[in-house]
Amino acid sequence: MSVTVVGSIAFDAVTTPLGTRERMLGGSAVHFSLAASFFDTVHVVGPVGDDFGAQEYAVLNARGVDTADIERVAGGQTFFWRGEYGWDFNERQTLDTQLNVFAEFRPKLSEASRGADVLFLANIQPQLQREVREQCSGARFVALDSMNLWIETAREALLETIAGVDCLMLNDAELRQLTREPSFVRAARQVREWGPRVIIAKQGEYGAAMFTEEGFFGLPAFPLERVVDPTGAGDCFAGGFMGYVAAHPDAELEHDLLCRAMAYGTALASFNVEEFGVERVARLTSEEISERVSELQRITSFVEKPIALRG
Amino acid sequence: MSVTVVGSIAFDAVTTPLGTRERMLGGSAVHFSLAASFFDTVHVVGPVGDDFGAQEYAVLNARGVDTADIERVAGGQTFFWRGEYGWDFNERQTLDTQLNVFAEFRPKLSEASRGADVLFLANIQPQLQREVREQCSGARFVALDSMNLWIETAREALLETIAGVDCLMLNDAELRQLTREPSFVRAARQVREWGPRVIIAKQGEYGAAMFTEEGFFGLPAFPLERVVDPTGAGDCFAGGFMGYVAAHPDAELEHDLLCRAMAYGTALASFNVEEFGVERVARLTSEEISERVSELQRITSFVEKPIALRG
Repeated sequence: MSVTVVGSIAFDAVTTPLGTRERMLGGSAVHFSLAASFFDTVHVVGPVGDDFGAQEYAVLNARGVDTADIERVAGGQTFFWRGEYGWDFNERQTLDTQLNVFAEFRPKLSEASRGADVLFLANIQPQLQREVREQCSGARFVALDSMNLWIETAREALLETIAGVDCLMLNDAELRQLTREPSFVRAARQVREWGPRVIIAKQGEYGAAMFTEEGFFGLPAFPLERVVDPTGAGDCFAGGFMGYVAAHPDAELEHDLLCRAMAYGTALASFNVEEFGVERVARLTSEEISERVSELQRITSFVEKPIALRG
Repeated sequence: MSVTVVGSIAFDAVTTPLGTRERMLGGSAVHFSLAASFFDTVHVVGPVGDDFGAQEYAVLNARGVDTADIERVAGGQTFFWRGEYGWDFNERQTLDTQLNVFAEFRPKLSEASRGADVLFLANIQPQLQREVREQCSGARFVALDSMNLWIETAREALLETIAGVDCLMLNDAELRQLTREPSFVRAARQVREWGPRVIIAKQGEYGAAMFTEEGFFGLPAFPLERVVDPTGAGDCFAGGFMGYVAAHPDAELEHDLLCRAMAYGTALASFNVEEFGVERVARLTSEEISERVSELQRITSFVEKPIALRG
């Protein structure tokens, strides 16, 4: 089986308190693809310009990512984003966004991409997400990310698109903004009424929380000595999560399996932020991932013991 | 054995999006005492004025709290705080603070309070915390809370006081401010060099994280349908945590025991925020606490299973 992701392919310029990169490979579909590539074959769908060269393809191909549906727009420039972070990595400032080839993007999926078992609709315009979702009519599990821009400017289209997916994956604040519910418990209930049966709130440095029909699951972020660049952490989380789902084509997607998927997502996200851009994940090994998931299990578990309470 | 807490005893006026209370029993020592009372005998030390009456004593006495060291200042008024919360419960606005009898408070501990096994220095002036710590020279486990005010205005005194305790328990942001380290891993290492061997970062609605010599432990907050009033949640967490420690007088205070203590702290804090002030914890039962800890264990655990990763 395989995973398809539709989203941005970008050059990012990032400044954090620990350094600067003027031009590095980025974009939600790229971060997702590299993370998911540890679990299954990934088809990446998105537009690039003439400036997207062999070096960039090589990063994806080295991880076995199928780049056939990367659409090269002759005479165009690749999407560009410039941002800056202070010490509070949950806050970021966008200094420049150049949509370039992304402005006219209409996703065209090959048969291989359309046939994927698992589909991730990274943060793009909701109407385009819906078109992709309809092309992948046989997908067993479909998740969607979005952002404040679409919640504010395309709410109705976004709600319609959400109705057609299995899993909504948003930042904490975006989920609140979308549902107008301050509590995750109530926000998740609201979203379930719209259609998705799995709701994930990404909480940045605090981790992530999930609701399924069977209830809540919460997982802290993996504790790190230092965070170098948080760009793409949410997409790596999604890549680990969706990759894990794709790697279990014959399993019921029940709560416990999705909890484990959360752990792999958390592990992938934690590696991603250790270095700039895709630098860390591009040279990651299976052993490192497995070790980190085991460690995560250890540092988030407690064993109950009976105690006599008073009153 | 027993627990002693020194801190504020207050009347609070609180407005949240779900309601208002003009005058209710509060203060760090009160919230702590009620939470810890489920585990062991609690001695509460703090000043009150003539306005603190039988009704307030009754709330504490009903939970078996020893109120002999509540110091009644004739002609004085009890500490008063007025605050307001919006939908983001991690942000609160202080509208009025009247120190009243608290301005001249010098803790005087009876023999019973001095003999406690476990001591919690709630958020008061660091020099006073140190005096109390010295009076309780036999305490087996001492923890300290503080706030941005003391970090900014009494940093040296605070560092000296921290050097004499086993556990530092601060809000996330305060821990960053105190250590000037953005990462909890590094902040905890810094604090351990100052003396404490256990460092806890309270993360509000996201839960809490701990570092001991044996490493990290992270626990999400218990997910709630609605939060009515977060005032005192941190002190209830401390009460549950320290109470659990006190209830194990013969045990090594090793990592696993402290992880369980975190779970009880988390459970107590979660009940506290379900209603205004002490309303919920005052009528809480042992069964409810045990059930919530079991539930917390269930919703924060995942079971690893081997998976073949690629690369």
